[in-house]
Amino acid sequence: MKSLFENIKILTPNGVIEGFLGVDGGKIAYIGEVAPAGYESARKIDGRRRALIPGLINTHTHVPMTLLRGYADDYDLDTWLTRHIFPAEAKLDGKCVRAGTVLGIAEMLAGGTTSFSDSYYFCDEIASVAEISGIKASISRTVINFDNEVKFGECDGTREVLDLFNNWHGRDNGRIRIDAIIHAEYTTSESLWRSLGSFAKENGLIMQIHVSESEREHKGCIEKYGKTPIALFEHYGVLDAKTIAAHCVWIDDEDMAIMRKKGVTLAHNPVSNLKLASGIAPIPKAIEQGINVSLGTDGVASNNSHDMFEEMKLAAILHKGRNYNPCAVNAETAFNLATVNGAIAQGRENECGKIAVGMDADLVMLDLDRPHFMPCHNLLSNIVYSARGSDVCMTMVRGKVLYENGEFKTLDVERALFDVENYAISRMF
Amino acid sequence: MKSLFENIKILTPNGVIEGFLGVDGGKIAYIGEVAPAGYESARKIDGRRRALIPGLINTHTHVPMTLLRGYADDYDLDTWLTRHIFPAEAKLDGKCVRAGTVLGIAEMLAGGTTSFSDSYYFCDEIASVAEISGIKASISRTVINFDNEVKFGECDGTREVLDLFNNWHGRDNGRIRIDAIIHAEYTTSESLWRSLGSFAKENGLIMQIHVSESEREHKGCIEKYGKTPIALFEHYGVLDAKTIAAHCVWIDDEDMAIMRKKGVTLAHNPVSNLKLASGIAPIPKAIEQGINVSLGTDGVASNNSHDMFEEMKLAAILHKGRNYNPCAVNAETAFNLATVNGAIAQGRENECGKIAVGMDADLVMLDLDRPHFMPCHNLLSNIVYSARGSDVCMTMVRGKVLYENGEFKTLDVERALFDVENYAISRMF
Repeated sequence: MKSLFENIKILTPNGVIEGFLGVDGGKIAYIGEVAPAGYESARKIDGRRRALIPGLINTHTHVPMTLLRGYADDYDLDTWLTRHIFPAEAKLDGKCVRAGTVLGIAEMLAGGTTSFSDSYYFCDEIASVAEISGIKASISRTVINFDNEVKFGECDGTREVLDLFNNWHGRDNGRIRIDAIIHAEYTTSESLWRSLGSFAKENGLIMQIHVSESEREHKGCIEKYGKTPIALFEHYGVLDAKTIAAHCVWIDDEDMAIMRKKGVTLAHNPVSNLKLASGIAPIPKAIEQGINVSLGTDGVASNNSHDMFEEMKLAAILHKGRNYNPCAVNAETAFNLATVNGAIAQGRENECGKIAVGMDADLVMLDLDRPHFMPCHNLLSNIVYSARGSDVCMTMVRGKVLYENGEFKTLDVERALFDVENYAISRMF
Repeated sequence: MKSLFENIKILTPNGVIEGFLGVDGGKIAYIGEVAPAGYESARKIDGRRRALIPGLINTHTHVPMTLLRGYADDYDLDTWLTRHIFPAEAKLDGKCVRAGTVLGIAEMLAGGTTSFSDSYYFCDEIASVAEISGIKASISRTVINFDNEVKFGECDGTREVLDLFNNWHGRDNGRIRIDAIIHAEYTTSESLWRSLGSFAKENGLIMQIHVSESEREHKGCIEKYGKTPIALFEHYGVLDAKTIAAHCVWIDDEDMAIMRKKGVTLAHNPVSNLKLASGIAPIPKAIEQGINVSLGTDGVASNNSHDMFEEMKLAAILHKGRNYNPCAVNAETAFNLATVNGAIAQGRENECGKIAVGMDADLVMLDLDRPHFMPCHNLLSNIVYSARGSDVCMTMVRGKVLYENGEFKTLDVERALFDVENYAISRMF
């Protein structure tokens, strides 16, 4: 099925083009100021007062935690985790996770996210919903072993990692990927670091890790191991796999040098880091040091949404205010964090992250016909500083429309909401 | 005209009521779980999957600066002001201001703001658009005299202040109010402080001031006068009028003591303070000290939107992250900043800021039937942490619908956009 966006503003890496974008075979096949030939029978999409941007890439979330939106806010981290989140999560089952995943992916699609990196439990359900939804997903199964010795593939958790990999990795021509994850240094130990690190490296998997999110965690690691979390993970070979390190609020200069050397992406989660009172990650310095920085929402329980436009704006303004430097993270940089850098983080840089001929047609159409976009001196500025998820009027992955004007083409949101309200909530809370 | 909201969630100061809200004579006349009598011929509004909240109150903006949205971002303050903003503003005329005001008020109404405090130029135009729009507005005419002696009522600027007061103050039963403003201590001097302070006090006007927005301004004032801006303004009687002090990023403990003693409201502008790299105001401490804290967007040139939901969420999360305290500003506090505290700031606390029988029907209806509101464990949490301006499906002031489902009932936004694009932009830039 071919599609042709007509008379639309197109945000390309080289600036804004006003004209036409043709989609053929799931790829961007044409970009230009004049209408292309060969699209006579294509679906024509009126682009007047609209803009096309590349799909946004959320490189750190836990999508089923959508179930916990607004369940427990404004508590200190310990109370939040031990009295509220962990007890609720302990009662999860596959049906809960499935329903929460539908709601979370629906929210992402409605807000212009076309690819996400996830870590959680009951990952078969997550992968299945992702497959049906049409979104791109990089899914990892969390294993927490604390100080216990792990024989990879022999305990429940790591067996699931293997099964997940065998059943799902590369599904639909790479749309679904399986990643590895080390949850964090304080919830795992050496045998898992070594074995999962090797497994990830041997199979070309992305490694996800939570790193130096809170001061307590960062300092506790130094006390226990004499090394920062990043240095520790480097030492045990975890970073030999292509890695996404989430949060990195408390990393130091040496950590940054390691991250740069090993090609580790820093997945910045500004909303979650503020809401959980973790602090503010040193993003301008990380960028200056040449680290690939991407963006994530984190789970909805600590956000409380999946709106990547909000992360983009907050990334752009937070570091200006914190560093008293209005040039700290400019609009273009913030936009790159949410797009091309996310694609690099996920190992998808050859398929998405920017609008160019030959890339997958992972496209988001914004409705500019709203007062908060008027006037438009600078489209990129309006997208970074004035847009929000609800300005998305169409989301497409590989040329297939997944969301349009409030309607989900692949997901049954009503049914998922029913399951959440009539099953998951009574089970979990 | 009577209206009746049916089967709706109503956010009152005492919690959420599910039921009915009746509007009669522009006031909230009934709130209850059962349908009231006497509304047989009223307009019935289906409230299923919707919520009613009090209209949001933006206590600091410069609405015509909507013209400058995205015009010059990511510059240092000096470059921004002197090379971009001031030269553009110097070419403003009434027609530009009128068109920009229509766009700005439209954006506010579409985002659930029902009252705003403004300071700018060409204020007849602002007042006229505000009157037509149906919104509540507290408008002040900026006078900048630097070190020049001012005889109040004899120079152009102060004459306009007088004319504005005489022509507009109290219009439509107090819906339009005229405030006084001292732009800032570095742009004005003693004769204006004394004369405008007296004028405001004698006539019961609110005084608006910009205070300690940047470190340079705060320290420069101490160097020049041996006092902080707040202490200086107290000394010259400016704070004897009921005052809204915007920004207050750099205020110290003694400033807070003065503000509390004089009943000064701190209008917090978290987005603008970050974007202009001014810093982060000490909001938790100010609240703890008993200062009335409200919220503002500041002008769109430094935001770049008028979305009070965004300010509310940022106020709730920013101070958690900055102070490493997840309880710093909770959801209820953030909601109060945007509603009841704003009403106190504007001297409108007897007419709006909360949903209660006898208050003006300044109401905002939110559409909860969207993935980012699912599930709903806690309505207030979802409103503060998950909502955004675009969730507003109806905005009503004094019982009159001003905005509904994308349609503006009182403003010609298309015409204003035409004037901006075909007149203002070519004139100003």
